[in-house]
Amino acid sequence: HCKVEHAIKIYSIYTLNACSWSCCALFVVCAVHCQRFLMSRVGEDWIFLILLGLVMALVSFVMDFCIALLLQAQKWMYGGLDSNVILQYLAWVTYPVVLISFSAGFTHIVAPQAAGSGIPEMKTILRGVVLKEYLTLKTFVAKVVGLTCALGSGLPLGKEGPFVHIASLCAALLCKFMSFFGGIYEYCASGNKWGKKNTEMLAAACAVGVGCCFAAPIGGVLFSIEVTSTFFAVRNYWRGFFAATFSAFIFRVLAVWNRDEETITALFKTRFRLDFPFDLQELPAFAVIGIASGFGGALFVYLNRLIVQFMRKQKTINKFLMKKRLLYPALVTLLISTLSFPPGFGQFMAGQLTQKETLVSFFDNRTWTKQGMTEDFNYDSHSAAWKHPQANVFVILVIFIVMKFWMSALATTLPVPCGAFMPVFVIGAAFGRLVGESMAAWFPEGINTDGIIYPIVPGGYAVVGAAALSGAVTHTVSTAVIVFELTGQISHILPIMIAVILANAVAQSLQPSIYDSIIRIKKLPYLPELGWGHHEKYNIRVEDIMVRDVRYITLNSTYRDLHEILLIGNLKTVALVESAESMILLGSIERAQLQALLTQHLSRERRLEFIRDRADAERKRVSVVSTPSSEEGGQKVNHEISTEESSFTPARPISPKPLKPALKRTSTAEKNIEIPTSNITHTHTFTYLWKHFKIEEWEEQQLDEQVNFNSWKIDPAPFQLVERTSLHKTHTIFSLLGLDHAYVTSIGRLIGVVSLRELRKAIEGSMTVKGVKVRPPLASFRDSGTSGTSSESEATELHKLWDRHTSINLFERFVWCLVVLTLGNLYLSCCFFSLAVALMTFFLQLFLFFSQFRSHSEQFSQL
Amino acid sequence: HCKVEHAIKIYSIYTLNACSWSCCALFVVCAVHCQRFLMSRVGEDWIFLILLGLVMALVSFVMDFCIALLLQAQKWMYGGLDSNVILQYLAWVTYPVVLISFSAGFTHIVAPQAAGSGIPEMKTILRGVVLKEYLTLKTFVAKVVGLTCALGSGLPLGKEGPFVHIASLCAALLCKFMSFFGGIYEYCASGNKWGKKNTEMLAAACAVGVGCCFAAPIGGVLFSIEVTSTFFAVRNYWRGFFAATFSAFIFRVLAVWNRDEETITALFKTRFRLDFPFDLQELPAFAVIGIASGFGGALFVYLNRLIVQFMRKQKTINKFLMKKRLLYPALVTLLISTLSFPPGFGQFMAGQLTQKETLVSFFDNRTWTKQGMTEDFNYDSHSAAWKHPQANVFVILVIFIVMKFWMSALATTLPVPCGAFMPVFVIGAAFGRLVGESMAAWFPEGINTDGIIYPIVPGGYAVVGAAALSGAVTHTVSTAVIVFELTGQISHILPIMIAVILANAVAQSLQPSIYDSIIRIKKLPYLPELGWGHHEKYNIRVEDIMVRDVRYITLNSTYRDLHEILLIGNLKTVALVESAESMILLGSIERAQLQALLTQHLSRERRLEFIRDRADAERKRVSVVSTPSSEEGGQKVNHEISTEESSFTPARPISPKPLKPALKRTSTAEKNIEIPTSNITHTHTFTYLWKHFKIEEWEEQQLDEQVNFNSWKIDPAPFQLVERTSLHKTHTIFSLLGLDHAYVTSIGRLIGVVSLRELRKAIEGSMTVKGVKVRPPLASFRDSGTSGTSSESEATELHKLWDRHTSINLFERFVWCLVVLTLGNLYLSCCFFSLAVALMTFFLQLFLFFSQFRSHSEQFSQL
Repeated sequence: HCKVEHAIKIYSIYTLNACSWSCCALFVVCAVHCQRFLMSRVGEDWIFLILLGLVMALVSFVMDFCIALLLQAQKWMYGGLDSNVILQYLAWVTYPVVLISFSAGFTHIVAPQAAGSGIPEMKTILRGVVLKEYLTLKTFVAKVVGLTCALGSGLPLGKEGPFVHIASLCAALLCKFMSFFGGIYEYCASGNKWGKKNTEMLAAACAVGVGCCFAAPIGGVLFSIEVTSTFFAVRNYWRGFFAATFSAFIFRVLAVWNRDEETITALFKTRFRLDFPFDLQELPAFAVIGIASGFGGALFVYLNRLIVQFMRKQKTINKFLMKKRLLYPALVTLLISTLSFPPGFGQFMAGQLTQKETLVSFFDNRTWTKQGMTEDFNYDSHSAAWKHPQANVFVILVIFIVMKFWMSALATTLPVPCGAFMPVFVIGAAFGRLVGESMAAWFPEGINTDGIIYPIVPGGYAVVGAAALSGAVTHTVSTAVIVFELTGQISHILPIMIAVILANAVAQSLQPSIYDSIIRIKKLPYLPELGWGHHEKYNIRVEDIMVRDVRYITLNSTYRDLHEILLIGNLKTVALVESAESMILLGSIERAQLQALLTQHLSRERRLEFIRDRADAERKRVSVVSTPSSEEGGQKVNHEISTEESSFTPARPISPKPLKPALKRTSTAEKNIEIPTSNITHTHTFTYLWKHFKIEEWEEQQLDEQVNFNSWKIDPAPFQLVERTSLHKTHTIFSLLGLDHAYVTSIGRLIGVVSLRELRKAIEGSMTVKGVKVRPPLASFRDSGTSGTSSESEATELHKLWDRHTSINLFERFVWCLVVLTLGNLYLSCCFFSLAVALMTFFLQLFLFFSQFRSHSEQFSQL
Repeated sequence: HCKVEHAIKIYSIYTLNACSWSCCALFVVCAVHCQRFLMSRVGEDWIFLILLGLVMALVSFVMDFCIALLLQAQKWMYGGLDSNVILQYLAWVTYPVVLISFSAGFTHIVAPQAAGSGIPEMKTILRGVVLKEYLTLKTFVAKVVGLTCALGSGLPLGKEGPFVHIASLCAALLCKFMSFFGGIYEYCASGNKWGKKNTEMLAAACAVGVGCCFAAPIGGVLFSIEVTSTFFAVRNYWRGFFAATFSAFIFRVLAVWNRDEETITALFKTRFRLDFPFDLQELPAFAVIGIASGFGGALFVYLNRLIVQFMRKQKTINKFLMKKRLLYPALVTLLISTLSFPPGFGQFMAGQLTQKETLVSFFDNRTWTKQGMTEDFNYDSHSAAWKHPQANVFVILVIFIVMKFWMSALATTLPVPCGAFMPVFVIGAAFGRLVGESMAAWFPEGINTDGIIYPIVPGGYAVVGAAALSGAVTHTVSTAVIVFELTGQISHILPIMIAVILANAVAQSLQPSIYDSIIRIKKLPYLPELGWGHHEKYNIRVEDIMVRDVRYITLNSTYRDLHEILLIGNLKTVALVESAESMILLGSIERAQLQALLTQHLSRERRLEFIRDRADAERKRVSVVSTPSSEEGGQKVNHEISTEESSFTPARPISPKPLKPALKRTSTAEKNIEIPTSNITHTHTFTYLWKHFKIEEWEEQQLDEQVNFNSWKIDPAPFQLVERTSLHKTHTIFSLLGLDHAYVTSIGRLIGVVSLRELRKAIEGSMTVKGVKVRPPLASFRDSGTSGTSSESEATELHKLWDRHTSINLFERFVWCLVVLTLGNLYLSCCFFSLAVALMTFFLQLFLFFSQFRSHSEQFSQL
């Protein structure tokens, strides 16, 4: 009854309010009631997602609003000072320099982790690695403020990557906030270990980030999957869709309420014709855009990495810049904004347009060339920026592409929150527009089909180019979907898909994606993907790549063994086997556990206990001989114990680094502690040497004791592989389960270990370099049947081969790829046409036959 | 040099050909050359995918062509006989009955596996289960022919599900075919075990199936991922996209070449207006469509299952139908086609339209109601079918929805190759159209916004309804994408996404998806998904659900132990532990291996050897006493040995079923074999009894021997879990790795086993039933702290609770869900509006402030 009453109450309030639109207070009361009711009824999952979507939509909208204001302010300043060019220049240049400097400074002071895109870090976090400080409130504030300022400066920077990070931050903070309410959130916010639950939420958050940035829910989900995951749980699919859709919806509804738009539409709405979007014979041009974009994307990633590496290598510059942290951003900003100053060089590259305006003008479906450039443009249209009395529209487009290309690659290396997606998107659109305008100039009447003339739409080419280049840089296919959602039209689906796939094919064979490139530069833990034609991986087995010399401890191990293992290796975990003979794997123990155990076994308390026992024994022995005052003796013992401890502890380096401080701390802490051993009688017969000898003896004795395994935290089921497991399967399992290492066993016996490092080496060693596939050193043995002797020489030879191949320069690789791909394309076309002709004739005959049959039968029926 | 020459040669040929379009023969030669060149250069992966795409596009196109012909033939027959209604009726009814009967008969004779959708089977195969006969050439032929006939009959059946199966079949066959060329295909076609490679290809094939069926590459990839996978490897993503895009491209290009279309466009192209696709205030109507579709989808699945179960339960009907296999399809077809006979009842449900024509008329953007139905329709338009002199358009739509609903649910149970997607899609479109027409009648001038009048587009509602209902039935979100690609417009993205998500939310909480439903009916191995609000799963641990009584063998096991284990259990694998005391898990052995080993140990050869040895010994002992002729004796021995064997073997049932035939076969085969023991001398002193006793003794002795483990195939690393592993993690691991069972260990010691069955029970036991969550029997102990005593009573009580809840009827659940969802919706709206008002005022003030600021500053700059 209660529920029904509730419903009626809510409904009545609702209808009442729909009439008057005023009584907000009642709503709040009602909302609180409803919330409690719903919190108890339905799972809290979707409430979390709705909140996340809502918050992110608001953040996105407010940020867009602020960015638009900042950009408008610059334009206003620039426009207001048009009497004096120098003042105008100063205003044009100072404004972004100040903003970028502020952004860089703020980010550096508040949270240096907020700099850069954030997608590489999210990829690493979603792989299971805990990156501290990447999901804190500080980072959130730094990222939001820094990004707003950076984008407001007008540099070619993007909003997408940081937004993925912001959404993840938002999800993490929301989780913490919601954990006050208990329930599911306790799991996701609990303690030091990021649970599975949290990973699910973070994956959804990534989708929200892209979704509310572009108002592209589907594209957002797919893009975030492609960029951050290696294996995707389909059961999390709805989370992403739900949150991203809600977020995109709110984001666009806010725009409607703000009277920016009449109704919910796409961000960059296009108006291409629906009935004949493109001719079949235009497809080669689209394919050319795809292939060229592939090379362009690879070049962009290469250039970006080159700049970063150059900046790091130049020690002197680097030192200077490290001192004056804000100098590098300021200098770069100065350079870029000087070049884009509209009365200066900027007039040749539409410098006065913002990114958004540029895109709108690219996606315009009118042709620029045919319309004569000067007459038909009305002034308020952004297309006017592409009109120049001296220069051709093609020249301007080429200059725009070239300049923006290096500018974007340079700007994305700045230590401010920024992404590379949007600049690349714009460059791609420009390239597409260039091709489109060329086609329109080449076929002014359109490619003729039967009778009707359909002119070429250069805007369609721009859309294709944008999708292809951004797909090539990020190594994703879902940019196609993002483009559909951004433009609100899906009519060019096949050209876009073809171009994106070709661009991906080219780019993936040349360079890693921009995010993987950053991951490598930042040295984050990663696992490279298996390449395109990776059938070789089926030949390599775990036994070829595993490390056979495994560090292990046995059930009978002494503390000395632990000590030695801790001294030698630097593995995170140590294997526990039954005995050195049987080698049966029982589990694995974390290094920290071992250290704690060793420290505990040689701890201050046990030392003191020993000394006390010894003293007791001494007392019993000596008490017959002499009896000094008990107080004095007690103090003396105390003193001696502490000096003894402090003198001998540093003398024995029990384990290299991590163990030492712990021991030191105990020994120093000891000096300040009073030991309640006041009743001990004591003699002066002990000498330091003897004492030292005794303690060392005790220690040796302690080290020789067997380890007590009862109090340990053992991981009883570390992941095990078999010798014959293929590299492909190993890679799958590692990326599926986010493993760091796995033990190789043979009927329970431990025979080796494979860690991420070995796997990485094996995969990268066998990567395709210029068509020649180099196999990893040991893989060839199995085939040849020989084993043992010639291993080293062969391995080094292979290494030489490998080195030689990597030294071949980029240009040659480009040329070769071009040749191979052109051939591939031509070959496909050949096959295609021959098949087409054959099929056409066949079908035409079939069709004729049937139409004859039909006419006959109609005659028959008429009769 | 060679490559460059090659390129030039190809290019020259290419340009030459572009001019003349005639010399096909040269192409073929060239293509062969090129192929060899490319096969050696680039990985063969993409060649396979291209071939797959090409073949599937051709199959799809040819099939569509044939279906269109069949449907046209029916129409022509029907149209030709319009003088006599009875003849017309006979023609109308006989045609589909014949076709469906042929389809059912053909399928039954050639390959009964081809019946039905095929998606459930593909899901099971991709999970790692080997279903024999599902991927053979026979099935391919049966599926293609059967599907063509079934769809040509005009019944409400779909093409999508079978196409997924056909594409997979095609991939498997292509794999086999390509394995002649060696290389990568050897792996995918090799032997009995389906490799990882094959799974990758099959996953891509599923995408191709959907992609070339609807010309929807993106939607195809996503749909196939959602429907078939639980965890998806992102590195396979490009495969699906590549193949599906190519396939869709060819499919549409064929249509262009066949002069069906002018250029490449969508299948069901819509022409909604772009500038104002829908009003914000229409969103509640879309949400209503989503929620109603959710209930409708659940009802459809329920109805479908009900019909199947009813047909199975009715023993007498079943028996009769089993005898006359073709009777059931024929009767159903007769019923459905009688009801849709256009001059009869069909006139009230647009019976003369095919599925495609119906969809085209639904997606039309003209309103039916406002245009007065009679005047404006031109006759050749399909919309004329919805015009009826007596009945209202709403009545016709309602009749159409209700009739098609049960017809589709019934038709999809027929034993012919058919899918449920398309019929459901049509029903959804009809429902959407109904809502749209109602809205158009309600607001004839459109929902008024500021000044301009935008009339309501009922076609948009139809699109939303189609996506929502098909999404609800299949539990997928990607139907939204399929709809975009089918209609070629993405302007309604937000309404569609909202409706699809709502429909999924409702449907998933009520019923499994249609594919999961079929999987359960067919009793295929499956693992249920964790539900929406599954935070409980974090409380259940493996120790609560595992089976503690594990069958195992030790390193010291005798053959007798093997024998006993084989007699008792029916597990597929048996655990191998070190010893019964230590219980350290060493690996697992397949049951078949054990059986083979036991059989081998007690094999004919060893028996004969024993008898020969015994005979030898006897001969030595007896030879002194008597010496009969050697030939006779030899024969006698032979005879005796064989009779001995045959008499005693069946007397000892070594293992229940699988072992017996093997033994029998050896003993019967033995009788025909001549044993080369001619030189043995023999006496008549042996009695049968004694011999029997001897052999039994030998056998007993053999059974007491220890097992020799050297020749065994042991899986040395079966998957291990720990007691504290949560149910959620277990589910993840099982579905990630496609496990069948996993052992639970504690520091190397085997303590239990979890199989798919236990997991399934645990998950389904804790599923949400009417909001009350029932926990699995053992989970409550940990919380209460008590252990042991009250376990059984509590478990049974919980069971009672569970039983009681399941007995609550469907209607009540519907009502409750409706109430909860309505409340949720209202609550959201409430929150929404209050927030909106607050935000609007805030932003308006902000905006006013800034505009004031701007005007001030403009005044300032003018000054």
